[in-house]
Amino acid sequence: MISVLRLGHRPERDKRATTHVFLVARAFGAEKIYYTGVRDRPIEENIAKVCNRWGGKIELKFVENAQLFLKKWLGSVVHLTMYGIPIQKAIDKIKKEKDILVVVGGEKVPSEIYKLSDFNIAVTNQPHSEIAALAVFLDRFFDGKELEMEFKDAKQIIIPNERGKTLKKIG
Amino acid sequence: MISVLRLGHRPERDKRATTHVFLVARAFGAEKIYYTGVRDRPIEENIAKVCNRWGGKIELKFVENAQLFLKKWLGSVVHLTMYGIPIQKAIDKIKKEKDILVVVGGEKVPSEIYKLSDFNIAVTNQPHSEIAALAVFLDRFFDGKELEMEFKDAKQIIIPNERGKTLKKIG
Repeated sequence: MISVLRLGHRPERDKRATTHVFLVARAFGAEKIYYTGVRDRPIEENIAKVCNRWGGKIELKFVENAQLFLKKWLGSVVHLTMYGIPIQKAIDKIKKEKDILVVVGGEKVPSEIYKLSDFNIAVTNQPHSEIAALAVFLDRFFDGKELEMEFKDAKQIIIPNERGKTLKKIG
Repeated sequence: MISVLRLGHRPERDKRATTHVFLVARAFGAEKIYYTGVRDRPIEENIAKVCNRWGGKIELKFVENAQLFLKKWLGSVVHLTMYGIPIQKAIDKIKKEKDILVVVGGEKVPSEIYKLSDFNIAVTNQPHSEIAALAVFLDRFFDGKELEMEFKDAKQIIIPNERGKTLKKIG
């Protein structure tokens, strides 16, 4: 099972980036999402609406203290950071771990997070995007099988279309 | 060669998301970036600074009219959209194309874009993030080789570190 922890959410500045992180977590097969920073009920409601419409259930929880949360985590902690070990060198080992918590940063990640993580993993050692890093990590972790996933109890699904939009309402 | 076109940039609302798109394009091996919407010089300067510091050269150009630009594009146009054909079904065919322009949307993508594209491709048929979709597309397109890329004339590089940050200044 994969869970995702988003660090240091600031409702004013991060609404969109955090929403992208949450939606990627859901679409790429994570089962639980946690976040620290400042609690943001509108964003929680937004994700609940997406699940209601597009199906699947994902637990979304605010966590007060990231360090404490990592210390208590019983499984394996994978922190995505441009400073880490290249994903292509570590992914086979990570696939053997259980109850993985994937941690993605906000602006400044405290150095303690690097120490509390079992793996610090880089999706390229270049600056880009925690949203992209999370997506590529999950795609590699699930070997692309997450792309075939179906979401339970969806009220609408997309029928793939070569030249337009086809949305099918269900029930 | 891969180029990326970001549609409908609004400096006020999209600064961060567009920056992520541009940085992903650079980090995952695109050679040119174009964008439409409203011209944003600070974002252009920001990307130039990243290239100056982290190496590589990427052309970044504002384009007035997306539709006209697509009509004149001599290579293949791949539009990333949740409504499209699953990437896993189309990627082998796309790999045979030349001079690919990968188009990623902003808020509302005009229906003409779907028609002007040679491929409308979905990275999952679920709502998530154009940033994530672009990263996974490029990772699949380059078969992960982009993760090994080195950037020319970098002033600093990261030495992968299991538990912290190692930045090496060059020259």
